[in-house]
Amino acid sequence: MVVMKRSRAVDQFMERAIQLSVENVRSGAGGPFAAVVVRNGAILATGVNQVTGTLDPTAHAEIVAIREACRAVRNFQLSDCELYTTCEPCPMCMGAIYWARIARIYYATTREDAAKVGFDDSFIYDQLALKLEARKIPMVQILRDQALQVFQEWERSQTKIKY
Amino acid sequence: MVVMKRSRAVDQFMERAIQLSVENVRSGAGGPFAAVVVRNGAILATGVNQVTGTLDPTAHAEIVAIREACRAVRNFQLSDCELYTTCEPCPMCMGAIYWARIARIYYATTREDAAKVGFDDSFIYDQLALKLEARKIPMVQILRDQALQVFQEWERSQTKIKY
Repeated sequence: MVVMKRSRAVDQFMERAIQLSVENVRSGAGGPFAAVVVRNGAILATGVNQVTGTLDPTAHAEIVAIREACRAVRNFQLSDCELYTTCEPCPMCMGAIYWARIARIYYATTREDAAKVGFDDSFIYDQLALKLEARKIPMVQILRDQALQVFQEWERSQTKIKY
Repeated sequence: MVVMKRSRAVDQFMERAIQLSVENVRSGAGGPFAAVVVRNGAILATGVNQVTGTLDPTAHAEIVAIREACRAVRNFQLSDCELYTTCEPCPMCMGAIYWARIARIYYATTREDAAKVGFDDSFIYDQLALKLEARKIPMVQILRDQALQVFQEWERSQTKIKY
Protein backbone atom coordinates (compact mmCIF):
# COMPACT_ATOMS: atom_id res chain seq x y z
CA MET A 1 0.00 0.00 0.00
CA VAL A 2 1.31 3.41 -0.99
CA VAL A 3 0.72 6.03 1.70
CA MET A 4 0.43 9.57 0.39
CA LYS A 5 -1.30 12.82 1.11
CA ARG A 6 -4.22 12.96 -1.24
CA SER A 7 -6.88 15.38 -2.33
CA ARG A 8 -10.55 15.12 -1.42
CA ALA A 9 -11.31 14.61 -5.12
CA VAL A 10 -9.45 11.31 -5.09
CA ASP A 11 -11.70 10.00 -2.31
CA GLN A 12 -14.77 11.30 -4.09
CA PHE A 13 -13.99 9.44 -7.31
CA MET A 14 -13.54 6.21 -5.35
CA GLU A 15 -16.71 6.88 -3.36
CA ARG A 16 -18.54 7.19 -6.68
CA ALA A 17 -17.15 3.83 -7.79
CA ILE A 18 -18.17 2.23 -4.47
CA GLN A 19 -21.67 3.67 -4.84
CA LEU A 20 -21.95 2.15 -8.33
CA SER A 21 -20.79 -1.24 -7.01
CA VAL A 22 -23.47 -1.19 -4.29
CA GLU A 23 -26.13 -0.39 -6.87
CA ASN A 24 -24.86 -3.25 -9.04
CA VAL A 25 -25.27 -5.78 -6.21
CA ARG A 26 -28.73 -4.49 -5.37
CA SER A 27 -29.95 -4.50 -8.98
CA GLY A 28 -28.59 -8.02 -9.55
CA ALA A 29 -26.86 -6.94 -12.78
CA GLY A 30 -23.53 -8.50 -11.84
CA GLY A 31 -20.74 -8.80 -9.28
CA PRO A 32 -19.82 -6.29 -6.51
CA PHE A 33 -17.37 -4.30 -8.62
CA ALA A 34 -17.32 -0.88 -10.30
CA ALA A 35 -14.74 1.42 -11.89
CA VAL A 36 -14.43 5.05 -12.92
CA VAL A 37 -12.05 6.58 -15.51
CA VAL A 38 -10.99 10.16 -14.71
CA ARG A 39 -9.44 12.65 -17.12
CA ASN A 40 -8.57 16.26 -16.34
CA GLY A 41 -10.22 16.01 -12.93
CA ALA A 42 -13.58 14.84 -14.26
CA ILE A 43 -15.26 11.46 -14.77
CA LEU A 44 -14.87 10.38 -18.39
CA ALA A 45 -16.49 6.94 -18.12
CA THR A 46 -17.83 4.44 -15.60
CA GLY A 47 -18.30 0.70 -15.62
CA VAL A 48 -19.91 -1.96 -13.46
CA ASN A 49 -19.47 -5.71 -13.57
CA GLN A 50 -21.92 -7.13 -16.13
CA VAL A 51 -20.69 -10.73 -16.44
CA THR A 52 -23.92 -12.46 -15.52
CA GLY A 53 -26.24 -9.72 -16.76
CA THR A 54 -24.81 -9.71 -20.29
CA LEU A 55 -23.43 -13.29 -20.30
CA ASP A 56 -19.97 -11.90 -21.11
CA PRO A 57 -17.06 -13.16 -18.98
CA THR A 58 -14.95 -10.19 -20.12
CA ALA A 59 -17.47 -7.60 -18.87
CA HIS A 60 -15.57 -6.71 -15.72
CA ALA A 61 -16.04 -3.17 -14.42
CA GLU A 62 -12.59 -2.02 -15.55
CA ILE A 63 -12.98 -3.45 -19.06
CA VAL A 64 -16.41 -1.86 -19.45
CA ALA A 65 -15.09 1.52 -18.21
CA ILE A 66 -11.98 1.42 -20.43
CA ARG A 67 -14.02 0.56 -23.52
CA GLU A 68 -16.45 3.40 -22.78
CA ALA A 69 -13.60 5.85 -22.14
CA CYS A 70 -11.92 4.90 -25.43
CA ARG A 71 -15.17 5.47 -27.30
CA ALA A 72 -15.49 8.88 -25.62
CA VAL A 73 -12.02 10.08 -26.63
CA ARG A 74 -11.88 8.12 -29.91
CA ASN A 75 -8.50 6.65 -29.01
CA PHE A 76 -7.26 3.18 -28.04
CA GLN A 77 -4.90 4.72 -25.50
CA LEU A 78 -5.80 6.53 -22.28
CA SER A 79 -2.38 7.78 -21.22
CA ASP A 80 -3.82 10.96 -19.66
CA CYS A 81 -6.41 9.05 -17.59
CA GLU A 82 -6.56 7.55 -14.09
CA LEU A 83 -8.62 4.51 -13.15
CA TYR A 84 -10.51 4.13 -9.87
CA THR A 85 -11.63 0.59 -9.16
CA THR A 86 -13.31 -0.88 -6.09
CA CYS A 87 -11.02 -3.93 -6.17
CA GLU A 88 -7.45 -4.65 -7.25
CA PRO A 89 -7.85 -5.48 -10.96
CA CYS A 90 -7.62 -9.14 -11.99
CA PRO A 91 -4.96 -10.16 -14.56
CA MET A 92 -7.44 -9.64 -17.41
CA CYS A 93 -8.15 -6.08 -16.30
CA MET A 94 -4.50 -5.33 -15.46
CA GLY A 95 -3.64 -6.40 -19.00
CA ALA A 96 -6.28 -4.06 -20.40
CA ILE A 97 -4.97 -1.23 -18.19
CA TYR A 98 -1.42 -1.72 -19.49
CA TRP A 99 -2.57 -1.96 -23.11
CA ALA A 100 -4.58 1.27 -22.65
CA ARG A 101 -1.53 2.93 -21.01
CA ILE A 102 -3.55 4.26 -18.07
CA ALA A 103 -1.40 6.66 -15.99
CA ARG A 104 -2.38 5.61 -12.44
CA ILE A 105 -4.62 3.12 -10.65
CA TYR A 106 -6.52 3.70 -7.40
CA TYR A 107 -7.99 0.53 -5.90
CA ALA A 108 -9.80 -0.31 -2.66
CA THR A 109 -10.00 -4.04 -1.82
CA THR A 110 -7.36 -6.62 -2.73
CA ARG A 111 -7.28 -9.86 -4.73
CA GLU A 112 -7.29 -11.71 -1.37
CA ASP A 113 -10.42 -9.83 -0.26
CA ALA A 114 -12.10 -10.87 -3.54
CA ALA A 115 -11.03 -14.50 -3.06
CA LYS A 116 -12.72 -14.55 0.35
CA VAL A 117 -16.10 -13.78 -1.25
CA GLY A 118 -15.70 -16.39 -3.96
CA PHE A 119 -13.87 -14.78 -6.89
CA ASP A 120 -10.94 -16.36 -8.76
CA ASP A 121 -8.69 -13.28 -9.06
CA SER A 122 -5.99 -14.63 -6.74
CA PHE A 123 -6.14 -18.10 -8.32
CA ILE A 124 -5.62 -16.65 -11.81
CA TYR A 125 -2.64 -14.57 -10.63
CA ASP A 126 -1.12 -17.76 -9.19
CA GLN A 127 -1.76 -19.65 -12.44
CA LEU A 128 -0.07 -17.01 -14.62
CA ALA A 129 3.03 -17.17 -12.42
CA LEU A 130 3.44 -20.88 -13.27
CA LYS A 131 5.24 -22.24 -16.30
CA LEU A 132 2.83 -22.92 -19.14
CA GLU A 133 3.04 -26.70 -18.74
CA ALA A 134 2.13 -26.53 -15.03
CA ARG A 135 -1.14 -24.66 -15.41
CA LYS A 136 -4.63 -26.00 -14.82
CA ILE A 137 -5.77 -25.18 -18.38
CA PRO A 138 -3.52 -27.21 -20.72
CA MET A 139 -1.52 -25.17 -23.25
CA VAL A 140 -0.30 -26.93 -26.38
CA GLN A 141 2.04 -25.27 -28.89
CA ILE A 142 1.57 -26.14 -32.57
CA LEU A 143 2.43 -24.65 -35.99
CA ARG A 144 4.73 -21.91 -34.65
CA ASP A 145 6.67 -21.64 -37.91
CA GLN A 146 3.55 -20.96 -39.96
CA ALA A 147 2.33 -18.27 -37.56
CA LEU A 148 5.80 -16.66 -37.40
CA GLN A 149 5.49 -15.94 -41.12
CA VAL A 150 2.52 -13.68 -40.32
CA PHE A 151 4.65 -11.74 -37.84
CA GLN A 152 7.23 -11.33 -40.60
CA GLU A 153 4.57 -10.04 -42.98
CA TRP A 154 3.48 -7.58 -40.23
CA GLU A 155 7.10 -6.42 -39.85
CA ARG A 156 7.36 -5.77 -43.60
CA SER A 157 3.98 -4.05 -43.86
CA GLN A 158 4.19 -0.38 -44.81
CA THR A 159 0.56 0.29 -43.91
CA LYS A 160 0.37 -1.12 -40.38
CA ILE A 161 -0.86 0.98 -37.44
CA LYS A 162 1.29 0.20 -34.41
CA TYR A 163 -0.18 0.05 -30.90
CA MET B 1 5.83 -27.04 -25.11
CA VAL B 2 3.69 -30.13 -24.74
CA VAL B 3 4.49 -32.82 -27.32
CA MET B 4 1.58 -35.07 -28.15
CA LYS B 5 0.14 -37.06 -31.00
CA ARG B 6 -2.59 -34.93 -32.45
CA SER B 7 -5.34 -35.18 -35.00
CA ARG B 8 -5.36 -33.47 -38.38
CA ALA B 9 -8.37 -31.46 -37.19
CA VAL B 10 -6.25 -29.74 -34.56
CA ASP B 11 -3.86 -28.50 -37.24
CA GLN B 12 -6.77 -27.43 -39.44
CA PHE B 13 -8.31 -25.26 -36.73
CA MET B 14 -4.96 -23.52 -36.17
CA GLU B 15 -4.45 -23.14 -39.93
CA ARG B 16 -7.82 -21.38 -40.06
CA ALA B 17 -6.70 -19.01 -37.29
CA ILE B 18 -3.42 -18.32 -39.10
CA GLN B 19 -5.32 -17.61 -42.33
CA LEU B 20 -7.54 -15.11 -40.47
CA SER B 21 -4.46 -13.40 -39.00
CA VAL B 22 -2.91 -13.00 -42.46
CA GLU B 23 -6.12 -11.45 -43.77
CA ASN B 24 -6.17 -9.09 -40.79
CA VAL B 25 -2.68 -7.79 -41.57
CA ARG B 26 -3.48 -7.37 -45.26
CA SER B 27 -6.78 -5.56 -44.62
CA GLY B 28 -5.17 -3.24 -42.10
CA ALA B 29 -7.93 -3.91 -39.53
CA GLY B 30 -5.53 -4.61 -36.68
CA GLY B 31 -2.55 -6.61 -35.44
CA PRO B 32 -1.28 -9.99 -36.74
CA PHE B 33 -3.40 -12.11 -34.42
CA ALA B 34 -6.48 -14.33 -34.75
CA ALA B 35 -8.30 -16.94 -32.65
CA VAL B 36 -10.88 -19.67 -33.12
CA VAL B 37 -13.19 -21.23 -30.48
CA VAL B 38 -14.04 -24.88 -31.15
CA ARG B 39 -16.89 -26.86 -29.59
CA ASN B 40 -17.82 -30.46 -30.42
CA GLY B 41 -15.28 -30.55 -33.24
CA ALA B 42 -16.66 -27.48 -35.05
CA ILE B 43 -15.82 -23.78 -35.10
CA LEU B 44 -18.19 -21.91 -32.77
CA ALA B 45 -16.65 -18.44 -33.11
CA THR B 46 -13.66 -16.60 -34.53
CA GLY B 47 -11.93 -13.35 -33.68
CA VAL B 48 -9.22 -11.13 -35.10
CA ASN B 49 -7.33 -8.31 -33.46
CA GLN B 50 -9.37 -5.10 -33.89
CA VAL B 51 -7.52 -2.73 -31.52
CA THR B 52 -6.72 -0.03 -34.05
CA GLY B 53 -9.70 -0.66 -36.32
CA THR B 54 -12.28 -0.23 -33.55
CA LEU B 55 -10.15 1.96 -31.21
CA ASP B 56 -10.64 -0.61 -28.45
CA PRO B 57 -7.50 -1.75 -26.57
CA THR B 58 -9.39 -4.82 -25.29
CA ALA B 59 -10.28 -6.06 -28.79
CA HIS B 60 -7.63 -8.75 -28.93
CA ALA B 61 -8.43 -11.78 -31.08
CA GLU B 62 -9.07 -14.05 -28.08
CA ILE B 63 -11.37 -11.54 -26.34
CA VAL B 64 -13.35 -10.99 -29.55
CA ALA B 65 -13.67 -14.75 -30.12
CA ILE B 66 -14.68 -15.50 -26.50
CA ARG B 67 -17.32 -12.77 -26.52
CA GLU B 68 -18.74 -14.07 -29.80
CA ALA B 69 -18.72 -17.67 -28.54
CA CYS B 70 -20.54 -16.67 -25.34
CA ARG B 71 -23.18 -14.88 -27.39
CA ALA B 72 -23.58 -18.00 -29.55
CA VAL B 73 -24.15 -20.36 -26.60
CA ARG B 74 -25.85 -17.77 -24.35
CA ASN B 75 -23.53 -18.59 -21.46
CA PHE B 76 -20.68 -16.75 -19.74
CA GLN B 77 -18.73 -19.99 -19.44
CA LEU B 78 -17.20 -22.07 -22.22
CA SER B 79 -16.07 -25.13 -20.27
CA ASP B 80 -16.73 -27.46 -23.22
CA CYS B 81 -14.72 -25.33 -25.67
CA GLU B 82 -11.11 -25.20 -26.87
CA LEU B 83 -9.33 -22.05 -28.02
CA TYR B 84 -6.91 -21.89 -30.94
CA THR B 85 -4.85 -18.72 -31.02
CA THR B 86 -1.99 -17.73 -33.32
CA CYS B 87 0.05 -16.38 -30.38
CA GLU B 88 0.42 -17.23 -26.69
CA PRO B 89 -2.35 -15.14 -25.09
CA CYS B 90 -1.32 -11.97 -23.22
CA PRO B 91 -2.27 -11.64 -19.51
CA MET B 92 -5.53 -9.89 -20.45
CA CYS B 93 -6.55 -12.75 -22.72
CA MET B 94 -5.31 -15.44 -20.31
CA GLY B 95 -7.49 -13.85 -17.65
CA ALA B 96 -10.48 -13.95 -19.97
CA ILE B 97 -9.73 -17.60 -20.82
CA TYR B 98 -9.66 -18.55 -17.12
CA TRP B 99 -12.85 -16.60 -16.36
CA ALA B 100 -14.58 -18.33 -19.31
CA ARG B 101 -13.26 -21.71 -18.06
CA ILE B 102 -12.02 -22.76 -21.50
CA ALA B 103 -10.94 -26.43 -21.45
CA ARG B 104 -7.72 -26.27 -23.51
CA ILE B 105 -5.56 -23.76 -25.36
CA TYR B 106 -3.64 -24.33 -28.58
CA TYR B 107 -1.18 -21.55 -29.46
CA ALA B 108 1.46 -21.05 -32.13
CA THR B 109 3.95 -18.22 -31.46
CA THR B 110 5.17 -17.16 -27.99
CA ARG B 111 5.14 -13.94 -25.97
CA GLU B 112 8.84 -13.58 -26.88
CA ASP B 113 8.04 -13.88 -30.60
CA ALA B 114 5.41 -11.13 -30.17
CA ALA B 115 7.88 -8.93 -28.29
CA LYS B 116 10.31 -9.16 -31.22
CA VAL B 117 7.74 -7.58 -33.56
CA GLY B 118 6.88 -4.77 -31.15
CA PHE B 119 4.13 -6.02 -28.84
CA ASP B 120 4.10 -5.59 -25.03
CA ASP B 121 2.90 -9.09 -24.05
CA SER B 122 6.16 -10.11 -22.40
CA PHE B 123 6.55 -6.73 -20.68
CA ILE B 124 3.07 -7.01 -19.15
CA TYR B 125 3.77 -10.55 -17.90
CA ASP B 126 6.93 -9.21 -16.24
CA GLN B 127 5.00 -6.31 -14.68
CA LEU B 128 2.33 -8.56 -13.16
CA ALA B 129 5.02 -10.70 -11.53
CA LEU B 130 6.26 -7.64 -9.59
CA LYS B 131 4.89 -6.43 -6.27
CA LEU B 132 2.25 -3.76 -6.79
CA GLU B 133 4.53 -0.97 -5.54
CA ALA B 134 7.29 -1.88 -8.01
CA ARG B 135 5.21 -1.62 -11.17
CA LYS B 136 5.47 1.01 -13.89
CA ILE B 137 1.83 2.08 -13.50
CA PRO B 138 1.46 3.36 -9.90
CA MET B 139 -1.15 1.55 -7.79
CA VAL B 140 -2.55 3.39 -4.77
CA GLN B 141 -4.87 1.72 -2.26
CA ILE B 142 -7.62 3.87 -0.69
CA LEU B 143 -10.97 3.36 1.07
CA ARG B 144 -10.63 -0.41 1.47
CA ASP B 145 -12.98 -0.52 4.46
CA GLN B 146 -15.81 1.18 2.56
CA ALA B 147 -15.46 -1.17 -0.41
CA LEU B 148 -15.25 -4.24 1.86
CA GLN B 149 -18.77 -3.45 3.04
CA VAL B 150 -19.98 -4.04 -0.52
CA PHE B 151 -18.36 -7.48 -0.52
CA GLN B 152 -20.19 -8.18 2.75
CA GLU B 153 -23.47 -7.10 1.16
CA TRP B 154 -22.69 -9.44 -1.77
CA GLU B 155 -22.05 -12.29 0.68
CA ARG B 156 -25.41 -11.71 2.37
CA SER B 157 -27.34 -11.32 -0.90
CA GLN B 158 -29.91 -14.06 -1.51
CA THR B 159 -30.41 -13.06 -5.15
CA LYS B 160 -26.81 -13.02 -6.43
CA ILE B 161 -25.76 -15.07 -9.46
CA LYS B 162 -22.29 -16.50 -8.78
CA TYR B 163 -19.67 -16.80 -11.51
